[in-house]
Amino acid sequence: MDNMTIIAVASIITAGLTIALGSIGPALGEGRAVATALTSLAQQPDAAGTITRTLFVGLAMIESVAIYCFVVSMILLFANPFWSHVIAEAAGK
Amino acid sequence: MDNMTIIAVASIITAGLTIALGSIGPALGEGRAVATALTSLAQQPDAAGTITRTLFVGLAMIESVAIYCFVVSMILLFANPFWSHVIAEAAGK
Amino acid sequence: MDNMTIIAVASIITAGLTIALGSIGPALGEGRAVATALTSLAQQPDAAGTITRTLFVGLAMIESVAIYCFVVSMILLFANPFWSHVIAEAAGK
Amino acid sequence: MDNMTIIAVASIITAGLTIALGSIGPALGEGRAVATALTSLAQQPDAAGTITRTLFVGLAMIESVAIYCFVVSMILLFANPFWSHVIAEAAGK
Amino acid sequence: MDNMTIIAVASIITAGLTIALGSIGPALGEGRAVATALTSLAQQPDAAGTITRTLFVGLAMIESVAIYCFVVSMILLFANPFWSHVIAEAAGK
Amino acid sequence: MDNMTIIAVASIITAGLTIALGSIGPALGEGRAVATALTSLAQQPDAAGTITRTLFVGLAMIESVAIYCFVVSMILLFANPFWSHVIAEAAGK
Amino acid sequence: MDNMTIIAVASIITAGLTIALGSIGPALGEGRAVATALTSLAQQPDAAGTITRTLFVGLAMIESVAIYCFVVSMILLFANPFWSHVIAEAAGK
Amino acid sequence: MDNMTIIAVASIITAGLTIALGSIGPALGEGRAVATALTSLAQQPDAAGTITRTLFVGLAMIESVAIYCFVVSMILLFANPFWSHVIAEAAGK
Amino acid sequence: MDNMTIIAVASIITAGLTIALGSIGPALGEGRAVATALTSLAQQPDAAGTITRTLFVGLAMIESVAIYCFVVSMILLFANPFWSHVIAEAAGK
Amino acid sequence: MDNMTIIAVASIITAGLTIALGSIGPALGEGRAVATALTSLAQQPDAAGTITRTLFVGLAMIESVAIYCFVVSMILLFANPFWSHVIAEAAGK
Amino acid sequence: MDNMTIIAVASIITAGLTIALGSIGPALGEGRAVATALTSLAQQPDAAGTITRTLFVGLAMIESVAIYCFVVSMILLFANPFWSHVIAEAAGK
Amino acid sequence: MDNMTIIAVASIITAGLTIALGSIGPALGEGRAVATALTSLAQQPDAAGTITRTLFVGLAMIESVAIYCFVVSMILLFANPFWSHVIAEAAGK
Amino acid sequence: MDNMTIIAVASIITAGLTIALGSIGPALGEGRAVATALTSLAQQPDAAGTITRTLFVGLAMIESVAIYCFVVSMILLFANPFWSHVIAEAAGK
Amino acid sequence: MDNMTIIAVASIITAGLTIALGSIGPALGEGRAVATALTSLAQQPDAAGTITRTLFVGLAMIESVAIYCFVVSMILLFANPFWSHVIAEAAGK
Repeated sequence: MDNMTIIAVASIITAGLTIALGSIGPALGEGRAVATALTSLAQQPDAAGTITRTLFVGLAMIESVAIYCFVVSMILLFANPFWSHVIAEAAGK
Repeated sequence: MDNMTIIAVASIITAGLTIALGSIGPALGEGRAVATALTSLAQQPDAAGTITRTLFVGLAMIESVAIYCFVVSMILLFANPFWSHVIAEAAGK
Repeated sequence: MDNMTIIAVASIITAGLTIALGSIGPALGEGRAVATALTSLAQQPDAAGTITRTLFVGLAMIESVAIYCFVVSMILLFANPFWSHVIAEAAGK
Repeated sequence: MDNMTIIAVASIITAGLTIALGSIGPALGEGRAVATALTSLAQQPDAAGTITRTLFVGLAMIESVAIYCFVVSMILLFANPFWSHVIAEAAGK
Repeated sequence: MDNMTIIAVASIITAGLTIALGSIGPALGEGRAVATALTSLAQQPDAAGTITRTLFVGLAMIESVAIYCFVVSMILLFANPFWSHVIAEAAGK
Repeated sequence: MDNMTIIAVASIITAGLTIALGSIGPALGEGRAVATALTSLAQQPDAAGTITRTLFVGLAMIESVAIYCFVVSMILLFANPFWSHVIAEAAGK
Repeated sequence: MDNMTIIAVASIITAGLTIALGSIGPALGEGRAVATALTSLAQQPDAAGTITRTLFVGLAMIESVAIYCFVVSMILLFANPFWSHVIAEAAGK
Repeated sequence: MDNMTIIAVASIITAGLTIALGSIGPALGEGRAVATALTSLAQQPDAAGTITRTLFVGLAMIESVAIYCFVVSMILLFANPFWSHVIAEAAGK
Repeated sequence: MDNMTIIAVASIITAGLTIALGSIGPALGEGRAVATALTSLAQQPDAAGTITRTLFVGLAMIESVAIYCFVVSMILLFANPFWSHVIAEAAGK
Repeated sequence: MDNMTIIAVASIITAGLTIALGSIGPALGEGRAVATALTSLAQQPDAAGTITRTLFVGLAMIESVAIYCFVVSMILLFANPFWSHVIAEAAGK
Repeated sequence: MDNMTIIAVASIITAGLTIALGSIGPALGEGRAVATALTSLAQQPDAAGTITRTLFVGLAMIESVAIYCFVVSMILLFANPFWSHVIAEAAGK
Repeated sequence: MDNMTIIAVASIITAGLTIALGSIGPALGEGRAVATALTSLAQQPDAAGTITRTLFVGLAMIESVAIYCFVVSMILLFANPFWSHVIAEAAGK
Repeated sequence: MDNMTIIAVASIITAGLTIALGSIGPALGEGRAVATALTSLAQQPDAAGTITRTLFVGLAMIESVAIYCFVVSMILLFANPFWSHVIAEAAGK
Repeated sequence: MDNMTIIAVASIITAGLTIALGSIGPALGEGRAVATALTSLAQQPDAAGTITRTLFVGLAMIESVAIYCFVVSMILLFANPFWSHVIAEAAGK
């Protein structure tokens, strides 16, 4: 195993686990938010506007956490600074 | 084990675990959202339109988290930048 | 252990674990959705049409997550790009 | 340990764990669905037809997830493409 | 450790774990189903026929998941294709 | 460690763990079923016959899962096909 | 470590873990059953006969699961077929 | 590490873990049983006789599971058949 | 590491873990029993005598499980039969 | 593996795990906050202003915890002081 | 690592873990007992005497479990029989 | 791996895990506090001043725990006394 | 690694883990006790004296468990008998 | 790895884990205490003084547990007695 391979393997495994573990919290949180939104709508249909607006802001906040994970996962796959350095070094050798 | 094999093995294992672990959260979250949608429909059939619309937006948000995982899993199997690099290097050798 | 064997073993283990772990979330989510559908039907038999329709859409969404896992599992067993590459390489040797 | 043995061992262990882990979710999900079906029947005996029909569709959906696991388990035992390849190779040697 | 022994050990361990882990879900699911059946019977003794019939269908569905595990466990002990192959090979040697 | 010892050790450990892990689910499930039976009896003493009968059928179903585990455990200790094969082989040597 | 020692060690560890892990489920299940029996007695003192009888049958069923574990544990300590075989072999040597 | 030491170490560790793990279930189960007994006494002081009697029978059943663990733990420390065999063998050597 | 040291280390570690793990169950169980005793006293101050008496019997039963663990822990530290044997052997050497 | 590679691998793995594990708490916490906000809006539509304002302040506090994790993750990838030191040292060599 | 060091290390680690793990159960149990004591006091201020007395007896029982752990931890640090033996042996050498 | 690298790796991994694990508790705790603040506001809009003030003090207390973790994480990355010592030693060599 | 270093490392790690693990139980227990104290105060403001007094006694009991852990942690860092012995031995050498 | 490095690494890892694990309990406990304080304020605004005072005393008690962890973490980083000893020894060498 040369250095390049080790970095590639670490990037692959981490990219996958980051988005996999990082999806559990947001998915459960969004499920809960949507669920209570529906209960609230059924209970107070007149406040549908406020409820829906607050729900969407909340979902955006929660989704942002999942997107942090997705961004780190994509950086590791396609803009990995350590991989770039190793490739550059190997090319310049 | 040469470098190519190690990267292949890491990609296979990570691709599987990513979608496997990444499916737990969304599935539970969607199950909860659908469940309360049904409760709300039974409780307030007149608001069926608003409830169904909000449910579908919510399900789409939650599904998006599962799709992030599926995308990373597919990238690892069919558009893996590290694998491409190793193949290119092996071919050019 | 030559390279081919390692890739085969990794594919076998990952294929099994992917569908095994990936079935927990959807099965629990669907169980919850079906359960509340039945409660809602008992509570409001007149809304049976809307409830059943919403249930089936929801089950399809949740099932889709299980199917992602099944697809990845099948790809790993029968359309594995890394295995194909190794077989081709071994044949061309 | 020659290659054939390794693949056999991996197939045996994975086949067992796949169906073992894969049975937890569906069994719990079906238990929940059946349980609420019984509660609903006791609460609204007149809707027995709709409830039973919805229950059976739901059980079929949940059972399908268990069957995915069983199918993968059986494939690994009796139609394992990697095993076939190794046997063929050993025979042709 | 020759190959035969490794396969035997893997089969023994997997056979035991498959049925052991596979019994947790069904037993809990059946316990829940039976429990609500009893509650429903106490609440609505007149619907005993429908409740009992639905219970038995449901228990059969849940038991089927346990039986998948038992079948895989028995196959691994008494009709193990990999073991048969190794025995045949050893006999023909 | 010769082959016979390895198989013996694997059988001993698996036999114990199979029944140990396999007893958790059934015991909890039966505890739940008995508990609700008692609640139902206290709530509706007149339906004692139906409740008791349904309870016993249910307990039998749940116990069957524990018995699968016990059977596999006994097979591993006293009718282990792999052990028999090794003993036969050692005797015929 | 000769073979006899390995088998002895495996038997000791398994015997202990079998009864230790196997006691968790039955103890919790019996605790639940006894607890609801007491609640039911307080709620419906007139049905004490039926409740107590059903409780004892239920406790016997749950205890049986613990006894399976105890039996396996005792077999491993005092009637271990693998140990007997090794002792016999050592004596006849 | 000679054989005697290994068996002694295994016995020490197993004896401790057996009673340690085996005390969790019974303690929680008894705690639950005592707790509901007290609730029942407060709710129905007239049935104190029946409640106390049922409680003691139930506690005895649950305690029996803890005693199985204690017995195995004591056997491993003071009447260990494997240890006796090794001591006898060492003495006769 | 000579044999005496290994046995000493195993005894130290096991003695600590036995009482540490063994204190979790009894402490939680007693906490629950005391808690409901206090609720019952507040609800039915007239039955204070019966409640307190039942509580103390119950606490004694639960404490007994913790004492089993403490006894095993003390035996391992101060009356360890395996340690005595090794010391005797070392002295007689 | 030279020093540079080890630091790169540690940075990659830690960056991913930091944001992955660090997203679970905030996502669940925000989901809960949004959920109760919706319930409160449905219950008291007149206080929408205060509720929404308090919700946003609360979400900002919770999001700040996720951002700590994201900042550490980004520092590890793009402003890693240890990596800079190693690079500088390698360049100056 | 000579024998003395190994015993010292084992004693240090075990002493810490014993009190650390052993504090979880008692702290939670006492928290629960105090909590219900406060609820009971608020509900029935007239019974303050009996409640406080029962609470203190109960806390003493639960604290005793924590004290067992603390005692074992102190014995391991300051009155360790195995350490004394090794010191004595080293001094007499 | 020279000493400097080992310390760098340990610092990187610990810095990430500290803030990742340390964010779970505060995020959940703050989520709970904000959630009940919203419920309380909906229930008693007149006490908005006191509730908001108490909420902010509470959030500050909980956030302080997260900040402890962040501080330790930053110290490990940018003011690590062990790293400084090693750098100074390497420079002075 | 000489003996002194091993003992130092073991003391450092154990000191940290002891207080870290040992803080979980007391913090949760105190949180629960304070929480119910506040509920009780809101429900019965007249009993504030008794409630506050009982709360403080209870908190002191629970805090004592945390202090046991802190004491052991401090002993390991600053009054470690094993470390003193090794230092003395090294000095006298 | 010389002795100094090992002690530095152990200190770094332990310092981080101590505050990370030690923040979970206090954060959850404080979240619970603040949450019920808010509920109580909404329910009984007149008792705001007593409630707030009790809350702050309680938070201080819980925070103290987190501060124990922070103190140990800081001691390990900046006033580590073992590190001082090793540095002094290295300087005096």
